Amino acid sequence: VLSLSKFFNPEAVAVIGVSRTPGKLGYEIVKNILQSGYKGKVYPVNPIARKILGLRTYPAISEITQSVDLAVIATRANTTPGLVEDCAKKGIKAVVITTGGFSEIGPVGEELESAISRIVEETGIRIVGPNCVGVFDAKTRVDTIFDPPSRLERPSFGSVAIVAQSATIGAGLMDWMAQQGVGVSKFVNYGNRCDVNETDLLEYLSDDVDTKLITMHIEGLKNGRRFLEIARRVSRIKPVIIMKTGRTEYGAKATLSHSAAIAGSDVIYSTAFRQVGLIRVMTVEEMLDVAKVFAYQSMPRGRGVAIVGNSGGAAIAAADACQDFGLVLVQLADETIKSLEGIFPSHYIIGNPIDLTGDVTASSIAQSLAAVLDDRNVESVILLIQWQVPLLESSVIDIIGKIAASHREKPIVLSAIGGAYVAKSSASLEKKTGIPTYPTPERAVRALHALVQRSEFLRKIGRTSS
Amino acid sequence: VLSLSKFFNPEAVAVIGVSRTPGKLGYEIVKNILQSGYKGKVYPVNPIARKILGLRTYPAISEITQSVDLAVIATRANTTPGLVEDCAKKGIKAVVITTGGFSEIGPVGEELESAISRIVEETGIRIVGPNCVGVFDAKTRVDTIFDPPSRLERPSFGSVAIVAQSATIGAGLMDWMAQQGVGVSKFVNYGNRCDVNETDLLEYLSDDVDTKLITMHIEGLKNGRRFLEIARRVSRIKPVIIMKTGRTEYGAKATLSHSAAIAGSDVIYSTAFRQVGLIRVMTVEEMLDVAKVFAYQSMPRGRGVAIVGNSGGAAIAAADACQDFGLVLVQLADETIKSLEGIFPSHYIIGNPIDLTGDVTASSIAQSLAAVLDDRNVESVILLIQWQVPLLESSVIDIIGKIAASHREKPIVLSAIGGAYVAKSSASLEKKTGIPTYPTPERAVRALHALVQRSEFLRKIGRTSS
Repeated sequence: VLSLSKFFNPEAVAVIGVSRTPGKLGYEIVKNILQSGYKGKVYPVNPIARKILGLRTYPAISEITQSVDLAVIATRANTTPGLVEDCAKKGIKAVVITTGGFSEIGPVGEELESAISRIVEETGIRIVGPNCVGVFDAKTRVDTIFDPPSRLERPSFGSVAIVAQSATIGAGLMDWMAQQGVGVSKFVNYGNRCDVNETDLLEYLSDDVDTKLITMHIEGLKNGRRFLEIARRVSRIKPVIIMKTGRTEYGAKATLSHSAAIAGSDVIYSTAFRQVGLIRVMTVEEMLDVAKVFAYQSMPRGRGVAIVGNSGGAAIAAADACQDFGLVLVQLADETIKSLEGIFPSHYIIGNPIDLTGDVTASSIAQSLAAVLDDRNVESVILLIQWQVPLLESSVIDIIGKIAASHREKPIVLSAIGGAYVAKSSASLEKKTGIPTYPTPERAVRALHALVQRSEFLRKIGRTSS
Repeated sequence: VLSLSKFFNPEAVAVIGVSRTPGKLGYEIVKNILQSGYKGKVYPVNPIARKILGLRTYPAISEITQSVDLAVIATRANTTPGLVEDCAKKGIKAVVITTGGFSEIGPVGEELESAISRIVEETGIRIVGPNCVGVFDAKTRVDTIFDPPSRLERPSFGSVAIVAQSATIGAGLMDWMAQQGVGVSKFVNYGNRCDVNETDLLEYLSDDVDTKLITMHIEGLKNGRRFLEIARRVSRIKPVIIMKTGRTEYGAKATLSHSAAIAGSDVIYSTAFRQVGLIRVMTVEEMLDVAKVFAYQSMPRGRGVAIVGNSGGAAIAAADACQDFGLVLVQLADETIKSLEGIFPSHYIIGNPIDLTGDVTASSIAQSLAAVLDDRNVESVILLIQWQVPLLESSVIDIIGKIAASHREKPIVLSAIGGAYVAKSSASLEKKTGIPTYPTPERAVRALHALVQRSEFLRKIGRTSS
């Protein structure tokens, strides 16, 4: 098996089927590669044009005299088998086929896709696609996605890999991560996967030093047994968060006409995923929520949490969610309670949850957060901030950041409910402190629970970190 | 029982316990009322100061010679029983007690709260609170909330009422509604409800002509049987969406030290709510999602939906969610399929879902949306837009709006996954077309399902509209 590295670190990229018309997919792909910061060569292929976007074009792939590592094909479906053959003859090792109109549309498309698969078998060329947006590497900045960056923001370099069968789900997740400042290592949307599939990508990313966390969306598995074998191995090394759609009869039927994957029974997936240590999420929003806590926080020692905040109402919702997910509201140590009773006014509620009420201040949040983090019974903290109250100074963000930094061994998640000011405050806190923030207590608890699941899996297999 | 109208439409408001220090609750309340557009008189009460925020202050409530309809008390808890007595003597009919430190903190506070309840019984004065932010009326602009509008945006006038036991949940919801342009009629956060409770407010809002939809957060019920009786009556007139926290043992325990409500068994609540026609939601995010579809869309005739969009991946997730919620993906009529096959390229998937793929255009969305809305088998539409694709012109928003406007009898919901450009595009579409938009397909389907539940309830009781 050839390595997939040419997809992510090519020295030269050819784009086949580049129209002179802005908006057409091939044109947009070339434009995006040029804008993305990619340092390698770019060769547009067009039978008529001489220059596109300031680049010399080539009438055919065979006319490019320099060596090419990666080709992107964005022409009509029926031309692709011939073009893949040309790529193989040229010595190209990696091809992204963007075009749709293959197995997802029925027999005619299936035949075209089979023709491509045969070339893969004969030549060893590797294909991502067809029917996909391909790859983005946040370090080399190679970028085969046709969506313009003004519409789909590219993230900064970081530790989270995104592998997605669906472009909408994968690219939507990446767009959110870019917006929220979550760093990404590599992105792959693999569509119909006539060659490179979910298992290949999982295996490849398990060895990728830049990737600390793998997020994965699948519609079906090509070879379930092999996927689970690889997943079991990768899960020991780094966390893998997985979302599977096509869970239901309706979804499975829709899957057949999207990526032509066979969806399979959902209960079997859930059980198998759990057994091999994959962390399953149900929506792309949950994927983002969980990815953030994994990217930013350390593993908790156990299920014991403390809830601290200036909102009794949110604390009740958080307590409900803790019970739903089997997290334990611990009894605070006597010293913790006594020390806080000594400094707080009588209408603050000192217990678990701690409720600092509407006249909270930055210092009462700091005191209670520090106290629960120092408490030996507490293994993680759910912080609930009502940013809207008048007396809460924005200096609280730096104070929380300092306290969190000196207690890295205990994860913290935060929830704050509300509009523009709340979103801005939470985003600022997340950026400055690394505490992941969520718009509801339930989402904060759900994310924390995924971290707990991972820590329990690692203990079960005899590991204690990562 | 006195009407509650003085809380929402007072001709004069006194605020008791107004410090000269910005940030203190009483000061902020006066500041907010002055800024909110309220046209009545405002009398700050402070024993020492002569002027606060440019207003003449009064040393005691009894010193105000003019008549006062509503008083807001923001002093320490132990002073409140005496102040409520002063208010009653002055002839004030409505009092909001903002202050905390009552039954939620234990025996000392319970005694204070009982003292207030006794005054209520003796005098007939009505109290909202204690331990709450009180009321906001979007028409009269009376506003007893201490959170500044720069932090907690006040919404425009509209048809949705918010009743919440928790300030965080109620105010957070209102803040989101303001941000997203959902109009609000009245807001009440009632806290410990030593007098005015959830049932009183529900009954009052059922007769309020400005309110077409009631959203409600409760931690417990004061008198379950009476609440359900009233709820049954109100549900026949207008939809009531309810969120109950304190669902679990942990949550119930936290409730006791927040608003001192007894939480009760959750299964009993669910069953009882359903029987009387209340629509239950589990999180404040779901409350917002559901409120939007009720505020903007009509009742569907049944469970039959069509999924249309340019994202196969999102369509599968939507199809899964439809099955989860028992919505039915209908078979499109032959004419619909034939007419679309005649105009669409072969790689578009025409079925249910309809997948217009990555090279979608405004006109292909318009054609397919119009076709499914005209299809007799289709009773509502889930629209899935991937805004990021290069060829999708923003003119599509107006086109969708026109088509939706001529098919008002069939509800439409929209989902689009992604960052800043996606959020902006969806918000613009929601504002211009009245189609509620959601960040995930699952949330769009969940909201639509609530609408279906309501339409089925109305049919069951022999009504077909509202």
